Amino acid sequence: MSNERPIGFIDSGVGGLTVVKEAMRQLPNEEILYLGDTARCPYGPRPAEQVIEFTWQMTRFLLKKNIKMLVIACNTATAVALEEIKKNVDIPVIGVIQPGSRAALKASKTGRVGIIGTLGTIKSDSYRHELHEKAPDTYVSSLACPKFVPIVESNQYNSSVAKKVVSQTLLPLKKEKLDTLILGCTHYPLLRPVIQNAIGQQVTLIDSGAETVSDVSALLDYFNLNNYEQTGKTKTFYTTGSPKMFKDIAGEWLNITDLNVEHIDLGGE
Amino acid sequence: MSNERPIGFIDSGVGGLTVVKEAMRQLPNEEILYLGDTARCPYGPRPAEQVIEFTWQMTRFLLKKNIKMLVIACNTATAVALEEIKKNVDIPVIGVIQPGSRAALKASKTGRVGIIGTLGTIKSDSYRHELHEKAPDTYVSSLACPKFVPIVESNQYNSSVAKKVVSQTLLPLKKEKLDTLILGCTHYPLLRPVIQNAIGQQVTLIDSGAETVSDVSALLDYFNLNNYEQTGKTKTFYTTGSPKMFKDIAGEWLNITDLNVEHIDLGGE
Repeated sequence: MSNERPIGFIDSGVGGLTVVKEAMRQLPNEEILYLGDTARCPYGPRPAEQVIEFTWQMTRFLLKKNIKMLVIACNTATAVALEEIKKNVDIPVIGVIQPGSRAALKASKTGRVGIIGTLGTIKSDSYRHELHEKAPDTYVSSLACPKFVPIVESNQYNSSVAKKVVSQTLLPLKKEKLDTLILGCTHYPLLRPVIQNAIGQQVTLIDSGAETVSDVSALLDYFNLNNYEQTGKTKTFYTTGSPKMFKDIAGEWLNITDLNVEHIDLGGE
Repeated sequence: MSNERPIGFIDSGVGGLTVVKEAMRQLPNEEILYLGDTARCPYGPRPAEQVIEFTWQMTRFLLKKNIKMLVIACNTATAVALEEIKKNVDIPVIGVIQPGSRAALKASKTGRVGIIGTLGTIKSDSYRHELHEKAPDTYVSSLACPKFVPIVESNQYNSSVAKKVVSQTLLPLKKEKLDTLILGCTHYPLLRPVIQNAIGQQVTLIDSGAETVSDVSALLDYFNLNNYEQTGKTKTFYTTGSPKMFKDIAGEWLNITDLNVEHIDLGGE
């Protein structure tokens, strides 16, 4: 039985597109609705209560579009809002922190794992919590990188500014002898080459977003929600910010020329 | 919150141990209860109704032991009984065919996929169905290998007989120019080197059982069922057949010397 309803993805801005990219590769039949709250990005420095409120607004918007599953493709929102939303909606809801932690434990040989993320994600300590619940002996070092998201959102992730900021920011982690580094923000894979270069080639980078898609796939199977038709390939993107900027980044990152981007309002601040 | 209840694994015999091996690696904290219906193995040639009945008997036995999740670590039983059991018990139930199919589609570059399994699994056409629902263009070639399970169950999987039987059986598949071959029976990974040698090094072998453990892991996260204590490491093995033979194979395969194997009766034929 085929289920042709769309899967919803939400993020504070364009970061969740790194998850969508992987979803398009692994789940080509699925219709995708994406909502980036660009107007209020970044979420990282905001108080938890506010992030929860914004995440609910995004969730309600997509629920009205009849999504069959919700992917919180944002680490900051996952850290503070996943459990509450999961408990209160009647479709499967999945975040990015558990799949990312699991992948890191699988990848690490020395048990020395680093996490980079927004202020909100690092303050929540969710990754450390997950890692230590499953493997208490893991050495965990985490670092907030508040400058990274604005670089990505302003479409400067290939610039020399990006290189400079990233290598300076990551300096404290270089001494930690990590063998695995979790990209604990879905924006960061857009900076991946710059991050890899700054932290060193010997460190395995974990893209939590990409890992999440394996779980999405497992849950689609488990709940019999797959779309088996070749027709559901539409991808629709909503942004609370400028469709132009969104289109530039999304178009390049997803390699789609005629991207369907709509501006929406979520009630504002 | 930690859930220390065991995970149950069922199989017609020792085949599901290949799944348990992977579970012990990926989920070291989890307590495992395993039930192999050795006395009535193989399931492959039996009518579907009988396999369903036997699978229910195994399921009921483990439900009484308070398992928190059931893994049908047997392709033959998954093919005919998964949906019915999943619908009728109140813990998550997971089979091996969907994870195996998904992994094969991910691995295949040419879209030419082979499946080997028991008579029951191949006759059910479950793998072909799964593959074609997700990727209708896949070229699928399947072959029943009724001689493989008895070779494994009689602990001859390293013998020269095994080599001869496997290479003769797989001859028809060699012409198919496959790039991926699904080991569609959890017994077959014990024959993996022999199968790889017979089919050719260029073919990627998919161990559906091992793939299943990633899904188990995703579902433990999703349903908040993880055991976070280091105490739940007991593995208990039940067999309807001879504990001695079971212990020999399981001990060698899992590399455990003091294996806890109990003989039980399931009502018999």
